[in-house]
Amino acid sequence: MAEASRTSEARRDAVFGRWVVFSPARSRRPTDLKSHAPANPSSGAGAPKPSCPFCQGRESECAPEIFRVPAPPDASPWRIRVIENLYPALRRDAEPPEEAGEGEGEAAPGERAVVGFGFHDVVIETPRHDVRLWDLDAAGVGDVVLAYARRVQQLMEHPAVKYVQVFKNHGASAGASMAHSHSQMLGTPFVPPSVTTRLNCMKEVFKRLGKCSLCEFQSKDILVSETHNFSAIVPFAASYPFEIWIIPRQHSSYFHEIDKDMALDLGSLLRTMLAKLSKQLNDPPFNFMIHTAPFGVSSSCLPYTHWFLQIVPQLSVIGGFEIGSGCYINPVFPEDAAKILRELDC
Amino acid sequence: MAEASRTSEARRDAVFGRWVVFSPARSRRPTDLKSHAPANPSSGAGAPKPSCPFCQGRESECAPEIFRVPAPPDASPWRIRVIENLYPALRRDAEPPEEAGEGEGEAAPGERAVVGFGFHDVVIETPRHDVRLWDLDAAGVGDVVLAYARRVQQLMEHPAVKYVQVFKNHGASAGASMAHSHSQMLGTPFVPPSVTTRLNCMKEVFKRLGKCSLCEFQSKDILVSETHNFSAIVPFAASYPFEIWIIPRQHSSYFHEIDKDMALDLGSLLRTMLAKLSKQLNDPPFNFMIHTAPFGVSSSCLPYTHWFLQIVPQLSVIGGFEIGSGCYINPVFPEDAAKILRELDC
Repeated sequence: MAEASRTSEARRDAVFGRWVVFSPARSRRPTDLKSHAPANPSSGAGAPKPSCPFCQGRESECAPEIFRVPAPPDASPWRIRVIENLYPALRRDAEPPEEAGEGEGEAAPGERAVVGFGFHDVVIETPRHDVRLWDLDAAGVGDVVLAYARRVQQLMEHPAVKYVQVFKNHGASAGASMAHSHSQMLGTPFVPPSVTTRLNCMKEVFKRLGKCSLCEFQSKDILVSETHNFSAIVPFAASYPFEIWIIPRQHSSYFHEIDKDMALDLGSLLRTMLAKLSKQLNDPPFNFMIHTAPFGVSSSCLPYTHWFLQIVPQLSVIGGFEIGSGCYINPVFPEDAAKILRELDC
Repeated sequence: MAEASRTSEARRDAVFGRWVVFSPARSRRPTDLKSHAPANPSSGAGAPKPSCPFCQGRESECAPEIFRVPAPPDASPWRIRVIENLYPALRRDAEPPEEAGEGEGEAAPGERAVVGFGFHDVVIETPRHDVRLWDLDAAGVGDVVLAYARRVQQLMEHPAVKYVQVFKNHGASAGASMAHSHSQMLGTPFVPPSVTTRLNCMKEVFKRLGKCSLCEFQSKDILVSETHNFSAIVPFAASYPFEIWIIPRQHSSYFHEIDKDMALDLGSLLRTMLAKLSKQLNDPPFNFMIHTAPFGVSSSCLPYTHWFLQIVPQLSVIGGFEIGSGCYINPVFPEDAAKILRELDC
C-alpha cells in the first residue's frame, strides 16, 4: 500500500450510468499492477497441440462450419473459420419464442421463461495454435473484424434474434476453455440487460443535453491512441484498471455496418492495444466485447446509440461490493493508465 | 459434458429484470459441480495466526474500533468488533459532495466526478482465527446480523450517506484479502447502479400487477428451507449455480429495522445455508450481500421494495458474454439446486 498521489474520487459514466470508486490507496503504484497468472505462459513459443480441434487438420472434430476465410494459394487451406459452438449455451434448433404481450407467459409476478433458442458461434482466428490475435498483422486482425461483421449480418436476418453479443475470452481466468485463439458470439432472442441499461442512459443524456455520450471527445488526458477512424481511450469512469474503449470517431450505431477500410483501421488499433496490454501487464487474461445497437430499434434511437469495443484486462477480483451494488472499485485513475499505455512503445 | 435431463431455457427475474440462460449441456451433472479451490483449506483446524490483526490480542494493530459486542464474563474480551477499514475505498474524512442539480459538475456530457467521501467498515465476526461464520451457533450469527443493523442505523444518520452495502467475501477468489472471518460495509454518497435497477424493475412489476415481486411465493420447487420469519430459496432466475436468497416472509423494505427475534431466526437460517453450501460444494469461495432500500426513498416506494440476503458461491468464471451483456449463463436449474440443498442434512 504505497503513497497515493491522488485522493479517492467517485465518477459516473455517461454510457452505462455506473458509479465507479477510484481508490489509489487500495493498490500499489499503477506501474506495479501486473497479472500474477499470465493467460498463456507458453504462447508464441509452443508447437501445434495435437489434441486441439481448432488447429488446422482437425476440422472434422469441430461442430459444423458456417463459413471460412480462405488463405492465399499454397498456404494453409484457411485463415479464419466461423463454426457452430459444440456446447452451445443457446440452441439454434429450438423453437423461437413467440412475442409475449405484457403479463403473458409469466411464471410468477414479473418472471418469464422462454425456450433457450439462439445462436452460439465460434470464430477461430488463425489455423495455428501458437499464434495470438495480436501476433497477426493489422490486415489479419481486420479480417477477423470483418468475419464478425459478416456473421452478425447473417444472424440479423433471423426475425427472432434481437441482439448479437460478440466477445473474446483470453486465458482460463477470463473464461476461455480453449487456448487456441478464438472469439465467440451469441445471438439472443431478447435484448440483454446491459444493452437496455446502456440505451436508457445514453437516451437520458441525449434528451437532456442534445449530445451523444460518445461523440463529444472529452479530454486528451484519457486518450491512448488515434487513427483516421477510431479513438482508443481509457474511459473517464473505467470500471476496471487499464480498461480500454475503441470508439468510432464518426457517429455510428451499428458495428456490422463497418466497411473494409474501417475494419483494417480497427484491426491495426486493436492489435496495438492488445500488444500494449500484454507488454505492460504481463500477458494478462482479458475479455473484449463489442457493444452495438439491438436490431430493429426505432430510428429515433440512432442519434444516441454509438457502437464501441471494450477491452477489459482481468487484474482484480470481483467481490461482494461489486456483485451487490453494481459499483466497481478501481485502484488506477484513467488518466494514469492512459499515460502509461500512451508512452509504451508497441 | 454429460447427458442433460433438461433443455436450455432463458428466464427473466422480477427483481433485477435480468435474463439468465440455463444451459445444463455446458456443465457436467449438477452434483459434480464442486469448488476446485476451497476457500480456506485449513479452516476449522488451524491455530490462531500470530500475524493476523483481526485476532484477539492484536486490536492495537487495527484501524479505530467503532463498537464491540462484549463476551460473557471470564471469556474473551469481545465476540464481535466493528472497526474502520485500514485501507478504505471511500474516506470518512473527505468533504461530502454537495447535491448537484442536473448538468452541474459534469466533466463531459452525462459524466460526473465527486470526491471519494464515504464510510468503509469491517465487522470482525469472531475473535478466533480458525472459526468460520457457520461454526458459530445460531445466536452467534444472529449477533453478527444485529451488529450489521446497528452500524447501518448509525450510518443512516449521516445526511450524505444514501446507501449502505453490507457484504461478505469468503476466500481469496471471492475477494477476501484476510482469512479471518469478517464482513464489510460501504456507506456511499450515491445510490449504486444495481439498487436503482432493482427499484425500477420492482416498481414496474408493482405498477403492472399490483404485487411486490418478493411477497408472492412462487413455487415449492425452489424452496430450500423455511423458518417462522424467512424463506431460503434458489431464485427462479438465479444468475449463479447454487445461488440462494433469504427473504423475509412478511413484507419489509429496510434490513436495518430487523429486531432481535428476527435476527436470531435469520442467524439460524443463514448458518444452515452456509453449512449446506460448504458441504455440497467443497467449501467454495462465496459472497453474500444484503439488498435493502436506499435511505430516504419516498413512502410510495415502500410497497414494492423488499429486502433480502443473496448468497453467491463462486464456482464459475465470468467471461466476455456476461461482462458485455449483463446476462449470465447458469448450468444448474434452480429446481435441481434447491432439491439437492433441501435434501442435504446439515
